[in-house]
Amino acid sequence: YGKNTIKFLRLHTEGKKHFVKEVEVCTHLRLTSCHEYLDGNNSAVIPTDTIKNIVLVLAKKNGISTLEQFAIDICQHFMTTFRQVAYVKTYVQEVPWQRLQENGVPHIHSFIYVPNGIRFCEAEQCRNGPLVVFAGIKDLKLMKTTQSGFEGFCKNEHTTLPERKDRILCGELFCKWSYGECKDFDFDCIWNKIRECILEAFAGPPDCGEYSPSYQKTVNCIQMHILCKVPQVQVIEVVLNNTFYNVVDMKNLGLTNDKEVLVPVETPYGSCACTLGRK
Amino acid sequence: YGKNTIKFLRLHTEGKKHFVKEVEVCTHLRLTSCHEYLDGNNSAVIPTDTIKNIVLVLAKKNGISTLEQFAIDICQHFMTTFRQVAYVKTYVQEVPWQRLQENGVPHIHSFIYVPNGIRFCEAEQCRNGPLVVFAGIKDLKLMKTTQSGFEGFCKNEHTTLPERKDRILCGELFCKWSYGECKDFDFDCIWNKIRECILEAFAGPPDCGEYSPSYQKTVNCIQMHILCKVPQVQVIEVVLNNTFYNVVDMKNLGLTNDKEVLVPVETPYGSCACTLGRK
Amino acid sequence: YGKNTIKFLRLHTEGKKHFVKEVEVCTHLRLTSCHEYLDGNNSAVIPTDTIKNIVLVLAKKNGISTLEQFAIDICQHFMTTFRQVAYVKTYVQEVPWQRLQENGVPHIHSFIYVPNGIRFCEAEQCRNGPLVVFAGIKDLKLMKTTQSGFEGFCKNEHTTLPERKDRILCGELFCKWSYGECKDFDFDCIWNKIRECILEAFAGPPDCGEYSPSYQKTVNCIQMHILCKVPQVQVIEVVLNNTFYNVVDMKNLGLTNDKEVLVPVETPYGSCACTLGRK
Amino acid sequence: YGKNTIKFLRLHTEGKKHFVKEVEVCTHLRLTSCHEYLDGNNSAVIPTDTIKNIVLVLAKKNGISTLEQFAIDICQHFMTTFRQVAYVKTYVQEVPWQRLQENGVPHIHSFIYVPNGIRFCEAEQCRNGPLVVFAGIKDLKLMKTTQSGFEGFCKNEHTTLPERKDRILCGELFCKWSYGECKDFDFDCIWNKIRECILEAFAGPPDCGEYSPSYQKTVNCIQMHILCKVPQVQVIEVVLNNTFYNVVDMKNLGLTNDKEVLVPVETPYGSCACTLGRK
Repeated sequence: YGKNTIKFLRLHTEGKKHFVKEVEVCTHLRLTSCHEYLDGNNSAVIPTDTIKNIVLVLAKKNGISTLEQFAIDICQHFMTTFRQVAYVKTYVQEVPWQRLQENGVPHIHSFIYVPNGIRFCEAEQCRNGPLVVFAGIKDLKLMKTTQSGFEGFCKNEHTTLPERKDRILCGELFCKWSYGECKDFDFDCIWNKIRECILEAFAGPPDCGEYSPSYQKTVNCIQMHILCKVPQVQVIEVVLNNTFYNVVDMKNLGLTNDKEVLVPVETPYGSCACTLGRK
Repeated sequence: YGKNTIKFLRLHTEGKKHFVKEVEVCTHLRLTSCHEYLDGNNSAVIPTDTIKNIVLVLAKKNGISTLEQFAIDICQHFMTTFRQVAYVKTYVQEVPWQRLQENGVPHIHSFIYVPNGIRFCEAEQCRNGPLVVFAGIKDLKLMKTTQSGFEGFCKNEHTTLPERKDRILCGELFCKWSYGECKDFDFDCIWNKIRECILEAFAGPPDCGEYSPSYQKTVNCIQMHILCKVPQVQVIEVVLNNTFYNVVDMKNLGLTNDKEVLVPVETPYGSCACTLGRK
Repeated sequence: YGKNTIKFLRLHTEGKKHFVKEVEVCTHLRLTSCHEYLDGNNSAVIPTDTIKNIVLVLAKKNGISTLEQFAIDICQHFMTTFRQVAYVKTYVQEVPWQRLQENGVPHIHSFIYVPNGIRFCEAEQCRNGPLVVFAGIKDLKLMKTTQSGFEGFCKNEHTTLPERKDRILCGELFCKWSYGECKDFDFDCIWNKIRECILEAFAGPPDCGEYSPSYQKTVNCIQMHILCKVPQVQVIEVVLNNTFYNVVDMKNLGLTNDKEVLVPVETPYGSCACTLGRK
Repeated sequence: YGKNTIKFLRLHTEGKKHFVKEVEVCTHLRLTSCHEYLDGNNSAVIPTDTIKNIVLVLAKKNGISTLEQFAIDICQHFMTTFRQVAYVKTYVQEVPWQRLQENGVPHIHSFIYVPNGIRFCEAEQCRNGPLVVFAGIKDLKLMKTTQSGFEGFCKNEHTTLPERKDRILCGELFCKWSYGECKDFDFDCIWNKIRECILEAFAGPPDCGEYSPSYQKTVNCIQMHILCKVPQVQVIEVVLNNTFYNVVDMKNLGLTNDKEVLVPVETPYGSCACTLGRK
């Protein structure tokens, strides 16, 4: 198979107002042929340069109404244009430009880069199979400074970790969900709704939070909350890359450190992941 | 000289509300001695481990009211405690944790990582000299999709760039300013004011923007605006790392691309920088 | 499932001679239980801290004779010690310290970091299944400045790439092969043999090279050469991340550039990959 | 001032043998004018695009005999061609392609990327001033696993570090030296000689090494050795970014760890630096 990545910006204006979508598109193709590998016969090979041109031309002609629709367009183009394509997957990731605000007033043509969770999607199709759409968020870093503990875990002679009722829970989230077969969804609206669900399930109510007994349980809460609130989601995968913080022991410096000063632990680090679907 | 870096988190609670400051502190020391280099005599050397302990103990005892005050505290500690220190500079950089909001309600103990411009400061002092304070913002990426051109530049036989009246202006900003000798400023308030000034000067009025004839002129506008609006700033340095976008030529694909599809140019890239003070 | 990563250095001496292995170990566990996700019941959970301790204790007790043997030891430890483990995979990657040479004389305790291809391996096992071992090399960057072309590829209205008989072929290689069920192999010797095969197949004979009609064909040559020369390899996957170089057009600067000055193309970039096994 | 970076590859053949130099060139210009900043008058501005063209044309016309000669050529071109240039500095860094060997036989057109210390140089000139040349090596990581200690350092109530007679010394080296005014040196030969000196001074004799009482003393040894062996060097700056390794305490795991298993300490990290010249 082959993979190709191209980064570009699509600018669109309505009157004097400017709209920007900068994206990175990775197109993954598998051909029915294998002569290019075995014999050096390139007659079925679609060059990187051509794939780039196709992606740019589609962006020019169709615009990028949503990431998902653009990924679908690309998949369909390759399936219908090239008989030698056995499988196509298109991954589209957004560069997080947000419209600039000045005292609450949105600017007509200025933008700021705000990478607090990157939006992406995937569309994939095998020849004669359905076109399936995924969407997701990555690089979303969250922290809660209390309402988290870790107790009752498996112990043996290699255990040195103490049980804790009050620790910091911090990590980087990756969530990817499937919409099943491609339908006429409002992808932007659903994505925003899911981002909200993630924050709610991670943090709990704003006035008191909700106790997390483990990273694993927090992963499950996020999944359950999304499946419950967003009927379009079929299956959801969540990966939480943990950042541990150790309370600094200041006894030999003559001080009692009551979870006031902590250092991040670079290694070992862990992650937990789970995929959950509907029955 | 020697440099040491330590990263940690200071947690502080008022009632049930949690406040987080995660910082990276780099302490730069120059000693009056040089025997550690010449003779391997370490009697004047302050180990990395001790510097780390001092920074953590100061964080525990004083808290981090502002980055600037914390940097000043560290400088003063080294100057007054160690006679062999000839020069000390402390750089403090903030990890951009923002309080999470749920439907506009701030959460009491949950935070999200939002790196849209990193705050930092420096305090430095030579023995018998004044303690001088700097502050700044870095990694602030901004884009305007019109109201920018580049014309009338120097031309010769190596010139291939056409003149342009309408291009994309995009870059990453670094700003660092001096407060002169340490005074009793409201550092948080001033920093926020300066960030606002930068956005205003870069983007211009929200309804129409302001034409930029070059990256250089935009750098100057930012500096002038800050010097004009914020009297506490003595000198200001601005570096703008440009990202160029090329309009894709689609003629040989049979299309007219009217600044709709552009690709970022990875190399060559440029930057322009200027330092400006008051008379 | 959960993943944990720990980085450490194992030092070993024979007489006055020092031997260093610095490794990054990632242990991937899937449990038979799911109560930790559903109910917050942690009784089956093996904490990151315990996994770290186990890896370090095994390194201390057994040493790291080869990466592969160490990965096998870790897998077997988890399978035999914890009944709740359904699946374990251990990935071990080496930090490329090489013994320093002075005028051809190897130094007894000094090392230099030489990252020209990183060695890694994996051991994995499902409960009641065989223990399977993989090994590989990654981040190996190679270039040939001639004896490479690309012709006869698929063309349509989106094609702009010209055919080329003489271009630069440059890329970063990832190779991973399977040894099948764990046996008593000389893993170090085989790994070095395979690295040699890769270089030979990529470059061809030192005095003349060998023509490559495509990245795909070069991938296949590497695979065929290894399967032919190294009988212990069952299946081999090769991924080649291409770096394209464009000959700079200097016509409008009044010069003819005969493949003398080229610029790397950052985007679009491509990769091709193939997995090949024995019949 | 302004800075511009361009990366490219210069290919050169002698008969069938190919020679490759891939470099990153950063050109730093300061103009006598300031109208581009104050008034948006661009008549003195040399665009990034033109600077790129000049660098590529010089590479095409002159080739890159040595990095240093190429940096000198660029400086002189800007000084003599543009009257508005007040200051020019050119930084050239090499991509570390090494000729591939097969069983000791060098390949005529194949190369491997070996980043064990990156070569760079700088040439700088003020109008009416001398052209000064610097060269250096960076990202050179070295380790010695014994013959290093740290004792007799400054102690007070914040000290928790124990004295050590036998530790690991590991770090990343940056060295930059000045040749003074530009002369007709064999830059390649001198650079290789200095790299050898660094390794010798860091490691000591191959059969026994040499004891280092501190990172600082090792920095000084490297400097003294180079100044002594290489008369062309006027001034030398060395920065050593330390990586600390802690012996893992295994007492509560029932084991005695005699400097066999160590973990790298990510933070705090330190560096020490010194600049030394001839009398």
